[in-house]
Amino acid sequence: MIDYSPFLSTAARTMAPSAIRAMGALAAGRRDVISFAPGYPAPSVFPWEALREIASELLTGADGAVLQYGATRGLRRLLEALVTVMAERSVQASIDELMIVSGSQQALDLTGRILCDPGDVILVELPTYVGAITAFRGSRAHLVGVRQEPDGVDLDDLVEVLTRERSAGRTVRALYVVPNFQNPTGLLISLEKRRRLLELAAQHDLLIIEDDPYGELYFEDVTTRAETRPLKADDAEGRVVYLSTFSKTLAPGFRTAWITAPAPIIEKLEIAKQSADLCTGGLDQHMVYESWRRGVLSSIAPSLRAHYRRKRDVMERTLRAELGDRASWPAPRGGFFLWISLPEGLDATRMLPRAIEQRVLYVIGSAFFVDGGGSNTLRLSFSHPPESEIEEGTRRLCETIRTEIAPGRTATDAVR
Amino acid sequence: MIDYSPFLSTAARTMAPSAIRAMGALAAGRRDVISFAPGYPAPSVFPWEALREIASELLTGADGAVLQYGATRGLRRLLEALVTVMAERSVQASIDELMIVSGSQQALDLTGRILCDPGDVILVELPTYVGAITAFRGSRAHLVGVRQEPDGVDLDDLVEVLTRERSAGRTVRALYVVPNFQNPTGLLISLEKRRRLLELAAQHDLLIIEDDPYGELYFEDVTTRAETRPLKADDAEGRVVYLSTFSKTLAPGFRTAWITAPAPIIEKLEIAKQSADLCTGGLDQHMVYESWRRGVLSSIAPSLRAHYRRKRDVMERTLRAELGDRASWPAPRGGFFLWISLPEGLDATRMLPRAIEQRVLYVIGSAFFVDGGGSNTLRLSFSHPPESEIEEGTRRLCETIRTEIAPGRTATDAVR
Repeated sequence: MIDYSPFLSTAARTMAPSAIRAMGALAAGRRDVISFAPGYPAPSVFPWEALREIASELLTGADGAVLQYGATRGLRRLLEALVTVMAERSVQASIDELMIVSGSQQALDLTGRILCDPGDVILVELPTYVGAITAFRGSRAHLVGVRQEPDGVDLDDLVEVLTRERSAGRTVRALYVVPNFQNPTGLLISLEKRRRLLELAAQHDLLIIEDDPYGELYFEDVTTRAETRPLKADDAEGRVVYLSTFSKTLAPGFRTAWITAPAPIIEKLEIAKQSADLCTGGLDQHMVYESWRRGVLSSIAPSLRAHYRRKRDVMERTLRAELGDRASWPAPRGGFFLWISLPEGLDATRMLPRAIEQRVLYVIGSAFFVDGGGSNTLRLSFSHPPESEIEEGTRRLCETIRTEIAPGRTATDAVR
Repeated sequence: MIDYSPFLSTAARTMAPSAIRAMGALAAGRRDVISFAPGYPAPSVFPWEALREIASELLTGADGAVLQYGATRGLRRLLEALVTVMAERSVQASIDELMIVSGSQQALDLTGRILCDPGDVILVELPTYVGAITAFRGSRAHLVGVRQEPDGVDLDDLVEVLTRERSAGRTVRALYVVPNFQNPTGLLISLEKRRRLLELAAQHDLLIIEDDPYGELYFEDVTTRAETRPLKADDAEGRVVYLSTFSKTLAPGFRTAWITAPAPIIEKLEIAKQSADLCTGGLDQHMVYESWRRGVLSSIAPSLRAHYRRKRDVMERTLRAELGDRASWPAPRGGFFLWISLPEGLDATRMLPRAIEQRVLYVIGSAFFVDGGGSNTLRLSFSHPPESEIEEGTRRLCETIRTEIAPGRTATDAVR
């Protein structure tokens, strides 16, 4: 066979499979592994019966558009619905500030493409969502990390990093944040910090990419809807590119997400999407639209919040009972994730084969750090497995961690 | 509002809406326009009843994977089905030489990304598919045109162009071709030329990107299945990246297409896809798989061939009756398109507003040329409108053309 490397682009030559993928390969073929690795929603809470009815009504052939190519910007009536969805999130967006994409990953990819030339800087949190790292690096952006505090991105560090990068002559385009129940840490950026973040963006002429897949999934015992108010809601200057999705509130199989951004940005994103995949799936968009129109989305939201909250309870309760103070984590106030810091010196990557022997899987925290840090951290998703498996899997993990810890050691600071 | 241009990448700053889109805008709001512009399949031939039944069985909730995130490379059982589909096209492909993508446009985009650094050359035909132009330019590739003959790409010109580009120090990665019923010309590359094309690729160390959306849609009065044999079938060296799709044989709303390529290329494409959109839609892939498994795809194929052939008949018959020798076109032997050359000196772009006044729409041929040529050409899609509209719309177009032509003028060579 011929050697393909001379045919590959610079980007392709440096492409490597993700750590999460490598993890999957490690566990492949093992039986009875309980996986806290993928951030999948629980299929048991998908509204199957309603969706089945909707599909049956859509596929009569009365409306050919259901299975036809569609507009790149998205199905018009779904865009109109999104104006309402955004208004419910306190964001006033017009139709020309909206675009539907084939999942949030595409939103990240397209945003990277229209903002970044090779070497341009995007600032991300330490840690940050691994899919954003992949997408922005795909545009050959240079990612620079900003530290986190318990209420999200550290603004002093943000200014310091920004100033340092610009002094070094680099073009800093944007800061990427997941303010609500961040993947991977579960952290919520405080309202006060959101306000200051917008001020800093104006002051330092920075765009903000606000990724909000989990905002609807706040846990009502510890968080109010008001605390999830998007940065975009107070974006007077038009500095925020806001991304959200139906993957966590309806089902990810539909690959339907959206972007709310200033109209000139949407125009560029639309051209980029036309080149990337022409349009988002017709059946998917019609299914999502009908789910919204019939009130399926709004009627299941409270039960989703309750469902994931119960799962968090099981995981946290088990962790506390089994580990005591031998590890620490910020209490998840919503979303899918629990972020564990092991005592300094422990290495989640080295521990992984032993966890797999115990038949439990997690994602190594270092996959979420662009600066090589996080070796003593790991991400657990409590969203997908049923409660009984969460309890059993967490026990197995705690057993692994206990074995790993030298006697007398205690946990480091939760957020590092 | 702030000025966003300083935030945009080089690619984004030069992005412009496509000519086809501009055309749509021109016609928007006009009533009774018969459109031969978009290359859409006819929704009347989608197997609605079968699809409705399949959806109803898939959405019971028994298999959560239907609406879950899936593997980046695609649904395993659909990949296995594709091994069979490819074998029926005389291509022996193993699972690790296959990947499912979210429509052929994504295949073009990902291929451009893994093969091209900015300025690298991809060779395309004059004319070529506009979506390929968009996708490859999105990777900032430099597109260089190769002339066509009545049996497809001109091989002498190919060697000349290739030699010239390489002498100028440019990196030429690949040649992009649509051998079966090319979009936009409808041309079929002869079997003899396919053989020589593979030889030339080996001799000049070139990859071939073979795009085959229309191969199944040959018109049995003038073309045999054997004449659509993919280049990939005889690709002993592994130089062909083959793309195909279910958009024209099932429905485009499913956004499900595939790539067959050497395993090392698929590995890179998979990583690129993970960054682009994580995975193709779950419901879509399951629907397509079930359509294949239940024989829906194979059972509708003959009626699709007959359907589009009848539409071609109506369009050609009307054109001949109304225009005589005042324009020329290669007889479509399959696919969706008819490619008209007007007498030299006539300009399809200048004629367009008058066509719209006559309430008929086409795509200007120059949109398919990377060298600025083709001003006297235009593309008609006979695939989407019903036969009665094809007849009426073609009459309107012929009226427009007759008015445009100075008395006594005759057509130029069909393929230019």
